[in-house]
Amino acid sequence: MTQGVTIAGKVAIAGIGQTRFGKGLEPSERELACMAIDAAIRDAGIAPGEVDGLASYTLEATPDFELVRDLGLGPLHFFSQVGHGGGAGPGAVGQAAMAVATGQARAAVVWRSRKRSAAASRVWAQTSTVLEDHWKWSRPSGLLRPVDEVAMLAQRYIHEHGAIASALARIAVTLRDYACANPAAQMHGRPITAADYHASRMVADPLRLFDNCLESDGAAALVLLPADRAGKDCVVVEAFAQGLVTGHQSMADFHRPDPLKSSSHVTAAKLWSMTRFTPADVQVAQFYDAFSPLILFSLEAYGFAPSGAAARFVEEGGIGPAGRLPCNTSGGSLSEAYLHGFNLIVEAVRQLRGQASTQVANAGLALVTGCDATPNSALLLRRQA
Amino acid sequence: MTQGVTIAGKVAIAGIGQTRFGKGLEPSERELACMAIDAAIRDAGIAPGEVDGLASYTLEATPDFELVRDLGLGPLHFFSQVGHGGGAGPGAVGQAAMAVATGQARAAVVWRSRKRSAAASRVWAQTSTVLEDHWKWSRPSGLLRPVDEVAMLAQRYIHEHGAIASALARIAVTLRDYACANPAAQMHGRPITAADYHASRMVADPLRLFDNCLESDGAAALVLLPADRAGKDCVVVEAFAQGLVTGHQSMADFHRPDPLKSSSHVTAAKLWSMTRFTPADVQVAQFYDAFSPLILFSLEAYGFAPSGAAARFVEEGGIGPAGRLPCNTSGGSLSEAYLHGFNLIVEAVRQLRGQASTQVANAGLALVTGCDATPNSALLLRRQA
Repeated sequence: MTQGVTIAGKVAIAGIGQTRFGKGLEPSERELACMAIDAAIRDAGIAPGEVDGLASYTLEATPDFELVRDLGLGPLHFFSQVGHGGGAGPGAVGQAAMAVATGQARAAVVWRSRKRSAAASRVWAQTSTVLEDHWKWSRPSGLLRPVDEVAMLAQRYIHEHGAIASALARIAVTLRDYACANPAAQMHGRPITAADYHASRMVADPLRLFDNCLESDGAAALVLLPADRAGKDCVVVEAFAQGLVTGHQSMADFHRPDPLKSSSHVTAAKLWSMTRFTPADVQVAQFYDAFSPLILFSLEAYGFAPSGAAARFVEEGGIGPAGRLPCNTSGGSLSEAYLHGFNLIVEAVRQLRGQASTQVANAGLALVTGCDATPNSALLLRRQA
Repeated sequence: MTQGVTIAGKVAIAGIGQTRFGKGLEPSERELACMAIDAAIRDAGIAPGEVDGLASYTLEATPDFELVRDLGLGPLHFFSQVGHGGGAGPGAVGQAAMAVATGQARAAVVWRSRKRSAAASRVWAQTSTVLEDHWKWSRPSGLLRPVDEVAMLAQRYIHEHGAIASALARIAVTLRDYACANPAAQMHGRPITAADYHASRMVADPLRLFDNCLESDGAAALVLLPADRAGKDCVVVEAFAQGLVTGHQSMADFHRPDPLKSSSHVTAAKLWSMTRFTPADVQVAQFYDAFSPLILFSLEAYGFAPSGAAARFVEEGGIGPAGRLPCNTSGGSLSEAYLHGFNLIVEAVRQLRGQASTQVANAGLALVTGCDATPNSALLLRRQA
């Protein structure tokens, strides 16, 4: 791979925006999207009409053309969607970055808006008398919710590598501590202890309440510009990658020879092949954390801990503010808000700008990942020197 | 726009594949997808496991991970979807080409599979007691089917520029003639005359039966490789563009000041800005033709006829085999098959390879467009000298 043809360093994340996060917010999902995008556009200091690219998750319900109308964007020269739920976010940013880097768009917005606290949005909570496609292989065995599938992966990890209860507690408490330092977090002002974690109800063995992401209403958005337009000290896309492992079917993938060899391993190998940087260069990470074990899996897949060593990495404080790799420093999906991981990308930008609520000193390179248990993606962001 | 940073000439369409086209074919939509992709991979002369990118329409029902399993593809490093129905095809190819050009993927497949002849697939033919979103503005006025909306645009065109009945007849007959020369076409061996056209039933005034695309089962696929791997005489992506006009909401867009100033005008301006070529250099075109008037609109939007002059261009034989710009030379959506326009892209490649059933002499540059009446896209393909 010649570095010359990649998008490395060519595109800046020049604007970030988010709404309030919470349950039962009044604005509609579409209004939330508009509020976050409007904030990101103002932050970037461009006119709405300059935005000619829009990318998001296939899950996103707000049509691009309504955003164009509501916000005065466009006309558009790029629109794209990335599938696979929580795996999609960094990939949507990466694809928009490709468009800006190759001149297909001059300014692109990537966003995610959710009214997750509305029960109607929980697809898995809806019943059907007929099971379509591959779901017929897992639903009758009791794998009804995403948490059931990730619990299976956690059980497999425990089988392979030993107990993780202390590590999961440490993840939950660490992320809650970050949230308590972040006034925008849904769980701001609601600290928990390891004892609270261990006393919380079991949702899907071994996963307890505090291993699960929040139900959130809210939206977040980014503006991408050519790096040469974003000025000094901007945050640039150093690399991105997507990955879909062979044999993938559902999150648990219990029929694959090793379900722990997730799509993250594909994504990580690709990501590191697209940059001169290595895991040793990364100062802060935002790992997709709809469920706490995903952080363990990602720490290993992306090269921050050897196979089976992530629990110890966490137990020794590795993801805390004084650790080797502070992670999910806004509180993440467990304690800031759950927007299918998009708020993690916004937090990575804040870290590289030196604007985070728990700031990592001299953060110059940040990793953001999508859901370990689905086809996914990752972004390596860099502070332009 | 510096040419150096665009994808021009960097990616080849190295393989094409398609299934049989028809009504009531036995294979499932997923099996049809596999058959077309398998054929395209064989045509490209690569191993299935080399394919690490998959892109398609958001409409596509076959999950990427099932194709990976069924065909032995991957692992994947790129997956993407493009929205807006018939507007998406060239954009999906363009986005996959970006991924190959920037090193995100080494070999990408783009495909479309349909079992359109199954009534259940006709979303617009299903009824609902509640109208969601913007549909409430048009459905109560009788705009129930896509053809109703395009008929509105045709009426507006007639109001602005005069009668088009002769031109529409000429389009239907010309494309049927092409189909009669193409053994793979659904309407092969079933010629029609202008008299047949004028005698056919009115579906949505001024659009008659023969102004409408076919109902088809079938699939088509392409393989994209870096141009330097595809060898001499390959077909390369010279440029692509997407467009979404401000104020777009539905196909008819009757509330915009000029509904005929479609997204194609946005796409065309972008496309021509990304290449040194002009409309004068194009020898053959494949215009999205779910309904015949879309060809008139596209001829004007892409610069082949002045505003209001497309009907005359057609009546004078401009799109026929001896015309200035032979169009939809396999029979197109009206007479070959309707795969949301994807077969048009395959035919463009055949023309540039010199393998078309009605071959345009020395075809070196081909244009393919998406649906004029939706947010859309276009591809400019070139035979590598």
